[in-house]
Amino acid sequence: MPVIDCLAIAGVGLIGGSAALAARRAGFCRQVLGFGRSAERLRRGLELGVLDHATTDPAELARADLLLLAVPLGSMASVMESLAPHLRGDCVITDAGSAKACVVEDMRRIYGAVPHNFVPGHPIAGTERSGVEAAFPELFDGRRVILTPLAETERGAHELVRRFWEAAGAQVVDMGVVHHDQVLAATSHLPHLLAFGLVETLSQLDDRAEIFKYAAGGFRDFSRIASSDPQMWHDIFFANREELLRVLNLFNATVGQVRAALQSGDSGAVLELCRRAKRARDNLYLE
Amino acid sequence: MPVIDCLAIAGVGLIGGSAALAARRAGFCRQVLGFGRSAERLRRGLELGVLDHATTDPAELARADLLLLAVPLGSMASVMESLAPHLRGDCVITDAGSAKACVVEDMRRIYGAVPHNFVPGHPIAGTERSGVEAAFPELFDGRRVILTPLAETERGAHELVRRFWEAAGAQVVDMGVVHHDQVLAATSHLPHLLAFGLVETLSQLDDRAEIFKYAAGGFRDFSRIASSDPQMWHDIFFANREELLRVLNLFNATVGQVRAALQSGDSGAVLELCRRAKRARDNLYLE
Repeated sequence: MPVIDCLAIAGVGLIGGSAALAARRAGFCRQVLGFGRSAERLRRGLELGVLDHATTDPAELARADLLLLAVPLGSMASVMESLAPHLRGDCVITDAGSAKACVVEDMRRIYGAVPHNFVPGHPIAGTERSGVEAAFPELFDGRRVILTPLAETERGAHELVRRFWEAAGAQVVDMGVVHHDQVLAATSHLPHLLAFGLVETLSQLDDRAEIFKYAAGGFRDFSRIASSDPQMWHDIFFANREELLRVLNLFNATVGQVRAALQSGDSGAVLELCRRAKRARDNLYLE
Repeated sequence: MPVIDCLAIAGVGLIGGSAALAARRAGFCRQVLGFGRSAERLRRGLELGVLDHATTDPAELARADLLLLAVPLGSMASVMESLAPHLRGDCVITDAGSAKACVVEDMRRIYGAVPHNFVPGHPIAGTERSGVEAAFPELFDGRRVILTPLAETERGAHELVRRFWEAAGAQVVDMGVVHHDQVLAATSHLPHLLAFGLVETLSQLDDRAEIFKYAAGGFRDFSRIASSDPQMWHDIFFANREELLRVLNLFNATVGQVRAALQSGDSGAVLELCRRAKRARDNLYLE
């Protein structure tokens, strides 16, 4: 028996499309309504069986019981501005943004105060591919979803969003907004920045054709995330700019130390750093 | 019909062990003789069927027709010093070091001049695991091996080493010594340095336990190479220090530009960089 009648998804791409498929697989809702600005993308969502209904008209969102905002961070505010006047007061709102403080700020600005029925969220899942064609119902299976409810968040809204993501196969954990943004800056946003930066650096070398020809296993793994959606990552970098710059400074300091040790011939320091990093990395994925 | 009688492998780890297995698979030699300082590791090589014979005595290398030096770069000179007095004059020597100028320098110093029968080489293959237990005969299948013969290198020696690697399944290409070191600094040595540096940075954060708990797909790929052998990478970083520092400086400049663009709110610059990097990375692996 479905938990809700109408799940609305704003932004039917990899995340929104996969969430729709996972909710339908679990029988979480009676219908999935896709909302977006591109009629073409919505049509693909219908054709692929991701959506039951689709609309570009914000007024139709009045029938949503749960709204998942799965648009890029840079579009979050404008999409919410267009939807807010039409949503029912008891419609629970959540989002899938990779940074949380900025979305909370957007909502505060649009509503005057953060709505009690808004539960900020972030599914830690994705691939370097994007678009509704890349969506699949297993995307969230066994993956973590972080919710960052505020003091003013209603218990019932929090509970519904938790049930939604658990139905989608995910493991749900709660975290503070600021802490989320710090953790993600370190584990996701900085690695992406470095991967984009490395590929860009190599592209600028005179012998780049040959450079890329010999780019083997290590580089392939390292740079895979530089294949991710540029607009999405541009938005994330700016949305979480403060925390990203903070951890980038720490990284620069570490690399500066290695650089100095290489220059001064401090063999022990370089070896110790490589050993510590290997131990930390091995421990990480033994669990 | 075997091409040579005795293939000697100095350093029976992942690369040396896999080269032995690949040569035997191809029937390239009648016997594989393992040389090393650790009797225990050699015994494992015999038990695992990687070697026909094994010795810790340099004098036994007199029967080698082809010697592959597969020891860490930092041990290359001392191993060659111990072997040089015992090798026959017609024994062809090659190595598997990840940097080439430093090995050429070692040989020049030990022999007074670079020997005509020495063919510097570098198989672009490996995994983040190490040791003879990790060796397998398919490691070089379809992978590139770069040879960097010098003006004084004998044509016959060059030809034998090429046939050896082709028999092992690899695609052999020739390149200049300096160019090799530049290309590898950019595509392999720098990515490894950044991966070690990133894991080290995250290990130093106060909430590292939680940080690592949420380290998802992107980070996993990005940091895989930080699981590589620390001693080996320490050696490579120092062996190719000049080229590594040069490309690290270029990388730092690129990251500095992104950092400045983030700080000044230059949205267009960040988006363009992400787009260029994605295009370059996608083109790279479409081939």
